[in-house]
Amino acid sequence: MAKELTPRAENYSQWYLDLVTKADLAENSAVRGCMVIKPYGYAIWEKMQRQLDDMFKATRHVNAYFPLFIPKSFLSREADHVEGFAKECAVVTHYRLKNDPNGGGVVVDPAAKLEEELIVRPTSETIIWNTYKGWIQSWRDLPILVNQWANVVRWEMRTRLFLRTAEFLWQEGHTAHATAEEALEETRKMLDVYADFAENFMAIPVIKGVKSANERFAGALDTYCIEALMQDGKALQAGTSHFLGQNFAKAFDVKFISKENREEYVWASSWGVSTRLIGALIMTHSDDNGLVLPPNLAPYQVVIVPIYKNFEQLDEINKKVNELLPKLRAAGISVKYDNADNKKPGWKFAEYELKGVPVRLALGTRDLENHTVEVARRDTLTKETLPIEGIETVIKNLLDEIQKNIFKKAYDYRASVTREVNSYEEFKVEIEKGGFLLCHWDGTPETEELIKNETKATIRCIPLDPVDERSRTAGACMVTGKPSAQRVVFARAY
Amino acid sequence: MAKELTPRAENYSQWYLDLVTKADLAENSAVRGCMVIKPYGYAIWEKMQRQLDDMFKATRHVNAYFPLFIPKSFLSREADHVEGFAKECAVVTHYRLKNDPNGGGVVVDPAAKLEEELIVRPTSETIIWNTYKGWIQSWRDLPILVNQWANVVRWEMRTRLFLRTAEFLWQEGHTAHATAEEALEETRKMLDVYADFAENFMAIPVIKGVKSANERFAGALDTYCIEALMQDGKALQAGTSHFLGQNFAKAFDVKFISKENREEYVWASSWGVSTRLIGALIMTHSDDNGLVLPPNLAPYQVVIVPIYKNFEQLDEINKKVNELLPKLRAAGISVKYDNADNKKPGWKFAEYELKGVPVRLALGTRDLENHTVEVARRDTLTKETLPIEGIETVIKNLLDEIQKNIFKKAYDYRASVTREVNSYEEFKVEIEKGGFLLCHWDGTPETEELIKNETKATIRCIPLDPVDERSRTAGACMVTGKPSAQRVVFARAY
Repeated sequence: MAKELTPRAENYSQWYLDLVTKADLAENSAVRGCMVIKPYGYAIWEKMQRQLDDMFKATRHVNAYFPLFIPKSFLSREADHVEGFAKECAVVTHYRLKNDPNGGGVVVDPAAKLEEELIVRPTSETIIWNTYKGWIQSWRDLPILVNQWANVVRWEMRTRLFLRTAEFLWQEGHTAHATAEEALEETRKMLDVYADFAENFMAIPVIKGVKSANERFAGALDTYCIEALMQDGKALQAGTSHFLGQNFAKAFDVKFISKENREEYVWASSWGVSTRLIGALIMTHSDDNGLVLPPNLAPYQVVIVPIYKNFEQLDEINKKVNELLPKLRAAGISVKYDNADNKKPGWKFAEYELKGVPVRLALGTRDLENHTVEVARRDTLTKETLPIEGIETVIKNLLDEIQKNIFKKAYDYRASVTREVNSYEEFKVEIEKGGFLLCHWDGTPETEELIKNETKATIRCIPLDPVDERSRTAGACMVTGKPSAQRVVFARAY
Repeated sequence: MAKELTPRAENYSQWYLDLVTKADLAENSAVRGCMVIKPYGYAIWEKMQRQLDDMFKATRHVNAYFPLFIPKSFLSREADHVEGFAKECAVVTHYRLKNDPNGGGVVVDPAAKLEEELIVRPTSETIIWNTYKGWIQSWRDLPILVNQWANVVRWEMRTRLFLRTAEFLWQEGHTAHATAEEALEETRKMLDVYADFAENFMAIPVIKGVKSANERFAGALDTYCIEALMQDGKALQAGTSHFLGQNFAKAFDVKFISKENREEYVWASSWGVSTRLIGALIMTHSDDNGLVLPPNLAPYQVVIVPIYKNFEQLDEINKKVNELLPKLRAAGISVKYDNADNKKPGWKFAEYELKGVPVRLALGTRDLENHTVEVARRDTLTKETLPIEGIETVIKNLLDEIQKNIFKKAYDYRASVTREVNSYEEFKVEIEKGGFLLCHWDGTPETEELIKNETKATIRCIPLDPVDERSRTAGACMVTGKPSAQRVVFARAY
């Protein structure tokens, strides 16, 4: 069968690629590193967007839109930021093409060279803070709680659909505050929103933490993050929220008159999640049969497939399904009825399994006689025949159960591969097995760098809440033996 | 008062600019030609997006996302397309910056020159049809009904907020069909969707028509459009839907096996509307006091302002409003309660008038005693005091009335400046007065060009439905006297 996937055990990375392409989520485009997000993949992104957007609005944020292009000189204004971002990016140097005088299509018109090059935004702190300068005069103008849904470009050399692409879609929140406390509170609040979204919608357990200096966002005083663990034991950073201090306000000279009538620099946060989350979703729940989607984010939660031998039978089933559809929809369940006649039920079963539809209903003539319907769960691949009367309530509950079950499965897996490691020798052995390793570290970039160079493992975060009871107790760095206040989370990461 | 607008009669174009900036809709950015869409302006765009997206989905379209960049050579594949689009566009030539060896920030790294330049999409036909090649083998893969919400860039020399900007936001539908009839049916269906949206949501009357060859989309066989008339008598193209024939399928070699088992090229349509519509919205309804928004697209339809002398009074009003809010919301009315204490009611009245909120409620202590509320309409600037009991029903009906009223006002204005003109001499006089002129034209690009050069007027469209009874009768071209089958619509345009 053309749609068969490479088994995970054989080649996890090939399984991922097979799944993304065969489930019609995304594909590589003609432009190096840029992907095409196909309708089914985009439908998942739309569900994510809608939910996140609702959560942002519930926390008093509004959306706005800032330019795609950033003047080159803006990137140099914040010293750390330019180091982190200005390097690998798409540079616009000209604004016109002309017919090739030699007849070879079109060529860049050398006369149309920009005075200052424009950078396709890799992130928007600089252009946004340059704009905020005009919006902020007094404490009355604060806070500014703005989010932007946008595309960004980072010229990645090694790309992978959803996980690392030159262009990706994301949201970036950029907030401005009168005090450090408020900016920090915002930074943490949005981390909580991300964790809530990850756990209760994506069904992905995450560790909330702070990044070490090495892993901090370029220009931030502190980067908070949520870290998830994929099925193959590798970590994935699923969202970040940055406390920017006054760095960008100083770089773009954004001051305000405080309540106490003093001129002060504004405090900032920024936070973002991207289409990368779709990669996390896939690698947390899916199996060798295809995608497994959490009901809270599935483009449709239920698919109904008719089983029939002739058009008379199909007519009967259509009638029954047309009674059922409004009941399911009234119960808040999104449902697709696939009665296309050019595909066999077996093909449809495999297709919707591949696409991760949480619940499949199959309805045949015998079901009509018996007033039953076959209910199949994507997460457990089990099925049972149930009375069709009141099935909407059964399914509503089943969707809740599936949502909880796939979270629990991911949570249990993570727990099974999260362990404390107390010596660097043990660490070198354990890191090969994957998972989260809780270790003492002396807090220096040098030790972190050494560990990274020798083992490819990085500090995913310094957890905010104890990962387990003992992880908050002090100890000695596994490499240098110097004192350590708490264990940090190490892993190899995407 | 800082927020006063230049009167329309004094300087229409300055009025527009004042309104856009003072009502916090948008502003110019540090990047030439690129705008910042501010939260209030973006909220209007979000309302438009949501409505259009629902309409696209109701007509069986799905969303997807294609790359921002287009390889330069793609633009040359369709001969007309390259002429129309390849010229004024942002060209990416490099993918890396490096520290300036002379210490002047960052410079473009000459070693990181792209082999083939990338164009920031001015429209996506080429990259999408290159992708469709991989999606289409047989008639079973058709139709493809895909829409994309995206940013695009066209390097405009003279820009104007919303109306003409280098970067703008839009949606672009790109569909693929097995037959010319189906593609044409789709093209016209989407034109109807746009007209429905314009008239019933934006409250803008439009003329549906076909473009003359001169005004056709580069690469289309036919361009359908909706044309609106602004308050100053100038026309504005509010949306286009293109029948692309097999042009892009041939350029990108996209063939399919038909039901009759023949290999054929695929038929195409594309259609789009953009943030330009916000400009149309402003210039159709607004007045010297500010924005007038149709209730169907207003970020909030009702604002409530408390009138009080002390905090005790405010407490009482707060209580009453907190009873009222859920009733309004239950009636499907979006409402903002502005009880901020740092602004006076007079300031708030002016502010919400400027922002075009359709209905304002004011509630004072006397209203509490009398069980009344003051209801002010933005469209007519009238107000009356009404019983607060059952006010939600009154407002629901009032919003419908306002929606209809502003449409009617725009419709009547258009009717008053739409007239038949029968000689070119008369035309030259009448065109100076603005409005739509219905004239006979011989159908040649030469005559159209001559008229444009001499009068700055263009053929807005060849109307599909008679604009009035007589406009379908045949006649003689006002310039050449050659025969003409029907009158066409001339105007000066944005």
